[in-house]
Amino acid sequence: MDKQITSVNNPLIKRLVQLKSKSRERRDSGLFLLEGKRELSLAIKGGYTVDTLLYFPEYFSASEANSMSRYNIEIIEISKEVFQKLAHRDTTEGVIAVVKSKHHSLEDLKFKKKNPLLLVAEAPEKPGNIGALLRTADAANVDAVIIANPKSDLYNANIIRSSVGCVFTTEIAMASSQEAITFLKTYNFNIFCATLQDAKNYNEQDYTLPSAIVVGTEATGLTQVWREASTQNVIIPMQGVIDSMNVSVAAGILVFEAKRQRNFE
Amino acid sequence: MDKQITSVNNPLIKRLVQLKSKSRERRDSGLFLLEGKRELSLAIKGGYTVDTLLYFPEYFSASEANSMSRYNIEIIEISKEVFQKLAHRDTTEGVIAVVKSKHHSLEDLKFKKKNPLLLVAEAPEKPGNIGALLRTADAANVDAVIIANPKSDLYNANIIRSSVGCVFTTEIAMASSQEAITFLKTYNFNIFCATLQDAKNYNEQDYTLPSAIVVGTEATGLTQVWREASTQNVIIPMQGVIDSMNVSVAAGILVFEAKRQRNFE
Repeated sequence: MDKQITSVNNPLIKRLVQLKSKSRERRDSGLFLLEGKRELSLAIKGGYTVDTLLYFPEYFSASEANSMSRYNIEIIEISKEVFQKLAHRDTTEGVIAVVKSKHHSLEDLKFKKKNPLLLVAEAPEKPGNIGALLRTADAANVDAVIIANPKSDLYNANIIRSSVGCVFTTEIAMASSQEAITFLKTYNFNIFCATLQDAKNYNEQDYTLPSAIVVGTEATGLTQVWREASTQNVIIPMQGVIDSMNVSVAAGILVFEAKRQRNFE
Repeated sequence: MDKQITSVNNPLIKRLVQLKSKSRERRDSGLFLLEGKRELSLAIKGGYTVDTLLYFPEYFSASEANSMSRYNIEIIEISKEVFQKLAHRDTTEGVIAVVKSKHHSLEDLKFKKKNPLLLVAEAPEKPGNIGALLRTADAANVDAVIIANPKSDLYNANIIRSSVGCVFTTEIAMASSQEAITFLKTYNFNIFCATLQDAKNYNEQDYTLPSAIVVGTEATGLTQVWREASTQNVIIPMQGVIDSMNVSVAAGILVFEAKRQRNFE
């Protein structure tokens, strides 16, 4: 342990409370908070740099905390009161970390395959939907997810939680729709937009070449720029009374049709 | 308008507050509350019997309310205070209805096709997951959903909301797992259990005969009785770091593979 903090009025703790609650604070500082053992280990595995680890010794062992100093992480023991002030979840494991954000630029994307499969989400609005999309992206092992909304706050506690940590394991780029389209066209991706206009059934398309599957928001769908950039619009044929599908369910159906055509390779 | 209620202490309103908040109250009375125009119209379309309609005239027009009396519904004008006491959502349309539950027994299921496609969910725990499953079931127009947990409280406000009303449009039966299995075997369904043990890839199975796709909870999967009753266990091949998929996404992928094989007919 490098330090011990017992007061919620400690200036560092006050700054971390800001980091926890304010998107702008995360953006300006390039840092975010995560909590939980599993999330911590996934972030480290995903190549994230942990700045500081705060632990409450009744829930998280001091020896485990101190072993983390091998990663050149500052280790701080905190009181229950401080822990509760910083923790987002009810059930948690007594550990909170201050982690450096990644840049998530399109230029940094690296593909292992010659025919990458990408999932693009235009301006997803609900943290729970982004989290579920990232879970699907991890399960399908897509080459990257592009979030076509550069203002998305990826390190929102609700996204981290609802992604069950997939936010750390998935290659993610954030960009404007126009930047994303330019990128996809430069690298000769086929762009399949999930939208109704002039659409063909999703299962009648060939996804074995470099492919980007693009989904919009549940409320408003995809914007005009995507429809114009589309190689082919695709729909999931629906036959119900309401015909409304959760965006992460629709993305799962489309991405796994592509995986099926690629023999899950 | 048959009546006007302005006090939250009115005995009927007190009873409706119980109905709103207590699962047991809904079970014992065979009634539930719904709110919103769209939900009301879907429930009526779905063959539900509306007992009483309560409206707050600033948000819902009195003439529209009174036109509902053609359905032999008691119409009650309520004050803002009473409306807020009964409403579950922040944004709503000034209308609340007291509706009779259906029985949802297996015996009542009627199939239009010779090769029905069923979605079975064993003991889903989160209202949001049940809602999302019902949305997928509606979009795929499956012949019925069986919820293998007779204690599920289908008319929980969160299920109604997260299903965007699909709870009213989908044929639903509730039964114990054993009853559901007996039913499926009696009617010669192939039972495809989404579970890891001895599983084959989901896309290598034939779902064109009478088929039941069975999913368990995210936390514990399917219980032993289902694994024993299974015609074939199926998995969605996952290749990520975390390999965890939302149950409604997994159900969507499985059900739409079946639909694809059936040419969406």
